[in-house]
Amino acid sequence: MQFATPTEVMQRALSLAEQGRGFVEPNPLVGAVIVDENLNLVAEGHHANFGGPHAEADALSKVGQIPENSTIYVTLEPCSHHGKTPPCAEAILKAGLKRVVIGCLDPARHNKETGVDVLRKAGVEVEVNFLKSEAETLLRPFRKLQLTGLPYVHAKWAMTLDGRIASKTGSSQWITNQASRAHVHKVRGLMDAIIVGSGTVLADNPRLTGRPPGPRTPVRIILDSQAIISLKSLLFQTIHEAPVMIACREDVPIEIQKKLINAGAELILSPVNRVGQPELSFLLKELGRRGMTNILVEGGAGVLGSFFDASQVDEVHAFIAPKIIGGGAAFSPVVGVGISNMADALKLEQISIQQFEGDLLVHGYIPGPFDRGESA
Amino acid sequence: MQFATPTEVMQRALSLAEQGRGFVEPNPLVGAVIVDENLNLVAEGHHANFGGPHAEADALSKVGQIPENSTIYVTLEPCSHHGKTPPCAEAILKAGLKRVVIGCLDPARHNKETGVDVLRKAGVEVEVNFLKSEAETLLRPFRKLQLTGLPYVHAKWAMTLDGRIASKTGSSQWITNQASRAHVHKVRGLMDAIIVGSGTVLADNPRLTGRPPGPRTPVRIILDSQAIISLKSLLFQTIHEAPVMIACREDVPIEIQKKLINAGAELILSPVNRVGQPELSFLLKELGRRGMTNILVEGGAGVLGSFFDASQVDEVHAFIAPKIIGGGAAFSPVVGVGISNMADALKLEQISIQQFEGDLLVHGYIPGPFDRGESA
Repeated sequence: MQFATPTEVMQRALSLAEQGRGFVEPNPLVGAVIVDENLNLVAEGHHANFGGPHAEADALSKVGQIPENSTIYVTLEPCSHHGKTPPCAEAILKAGLKRVVIGCLDPARHNKETGVDVLRKAGVEVEVNFLKSEAETLLRPFRKLQLTGLPYVHAKWAMTLDGRIASKTGSSQWITNQASRAHVHKVRGLMDAIIVGSGTVLADNPRLTGRPPGPRTPVRIILDSQAIISLKSLLFQTIHEAPVMIACREDVPIEIQKKLINAGAELILSPVNRVGQPELSFLLKELGRRGMTNILVEGGAGVLGSFFDASQVDEVHAFIAPKIIGGGAAFSPVVGVGISNMADALKLEQISIQQFEGDLLVHGYIPGPFDRGESA
Repeated sequence: MQFATPTEVMQRALSLAEQGRGFVEPNPLVGAVIVDENLNLVAEGHHANFGGPHAEADALSKVGQIPENSTIYVTLEPCSHHGKTPPCAEAILKAGLKRVVIGCLDPARHNKETGVDVLRKAGVEVEVNFLKSEAETLLRPFRKLQLTGLPYVHAKWAMTLDGRIASKTGSSQWITNQASRAHVHKVRGLMDAIIVGSGTVLADNPRLTGRPPGPRTPVRIILDSQAIISLKSLLFQTIHEAPVMIACREDVPIEIQKKLINAGAELILSPVNRVGQPELSFLLKELGRRGMTNILVEGGAGVLGSFFDASQVDEVHAFIAPKIIGGGAAFSPVVGVGISNMADALKLEQISIQQFEGDLLVHGYIPGPFDRGESA
């Protein structure tokens, strides 16, 4: 096949990279496409599995002799360090490629000598920041974890068109239709962990698994400072399907701790904030330390509110069912402290809308300090 | 021009009818297209102004001799009674048309002998309910007023993606962007009246005019049981641009009544419900009696809630800005009593979504008894 423009080549590399989502983390999603001087496809590849070959190596492995004056398009700066696999910059040189086009630079440069340096020193023509915004969006979870040590947080809720997640009596099932809920299951299957509050477990008794399973089996994490979760909950009933982790106060009685551990749960003994909930900063640091890259916060409203209050939400998946519930005592999706002035409201960027048999999904990104290359 | 299918002919008639919106009420929106036997356009027309020629007459007036075997497509059953204009059924006979295709039947049949009867008795071939659903949607406001004596109610609100119309401090300006607000002004210019509560006047001091003006100049109606509105409000400052009507208790002191009337307002002295607000059923009956067809309820949340509680909302225009405000004390768009079980939530139909520079508008219809032909 022949590409019409260099932009099309990089777009293909971006969509190849996307195929690794859920499989490669905490590694970055990367795609690579090699084309000859007439933009004919020579070979393509992507990083497909954690620990597996990088995108450049994958593409190079699929072709013997590379036509003269070929260019490799790669969504992320090629690595220059020896990790689980040999450095890609060297592989590019070895293959005799004379031109490299890069989506965005590596936020996790391990050496002073970067991939770009290595290539340029060897006389390779290097163009950087080609479709930079798209390349960086793809890389946001990796970037946040690398620069801040914290996992990337997705917030998800489902509400009516008048902004309610439950009626005044607490009735909440079902707000969205089956097609929307199937999409949530797909998103779950890409995550390292799913977080809910103990109230949600009590109210909804959810399983929080991806059904059918996706590439990942997320850990189910309950913010449960008093460790009140019941062993009869579906989370414990399905503990053989996916791990359960309970974030609770350090002073929860030892017998309760033992009971939960014996039932198969892992406890994260956590300091608590002034309202008695596990400290998010402590919890997120701990999850980041374990290499967790993508975390889905599924509620309730208090838990979502505390993630927003802490400026720790990076991506929003808001489902809206076209129905009205009304009532002064009905429940809103995000509570917590909140923002005082409308002008200071948190703005989502790169909004996209999907429809699921009448329901809407509004998806967007919340810019974070890590987008500007700042570390924690 | 030649149409490809009969469906295309009726779609053209529907879009012609739409051009009368805001101009023809309380008459119905109607469009008509005459085609020859090969679906070539012969003439087209629509009802363009209240009191002006009906769509059929408008189309017929544009052509001399009608080709043999022509068909007239009309979105609504032709009238058979002498009103402001002669009956269209007769005009169709006079023109020698032998075939009539009708979108939907007239919900306001004044005689036992209907338009369809007149035509069929004269030997004309009549097909009814062609694109019936589209034709009936176009006609909903007319249909509600005819069958129930009540105006058709549009509910509009603007909220954040977490379902808030104001922050915990009451800050609400601006939730949506200028493009969204420009659309609201367009909608206002099609309405007979705009309703808000006195709280909205106090909080936002709105003008509630369409800027630039549309085909109609809506009356601004304030639900203000105690008649607390100030003569300094922008509503009174702009009373030369559009009328102000105040729905208040019958026992408001006569000096206050006089003051408001002298300033140019009309008072609707209204019985009040158990929470002291003007009775909606009384108010709507009064507005219907005046021939008001389309009413826009712009809030606040209590007023919107009481319209939903009374099952009097027919169409929803919900703007959603992709931003998050959060906070347990922030405000929701629709309060009132509300619905207890999520399964009983009011469902919108024929959902459409428009984007205004990032903001969303979710639009939909709420089925009413009048859709099933029931009168009040």
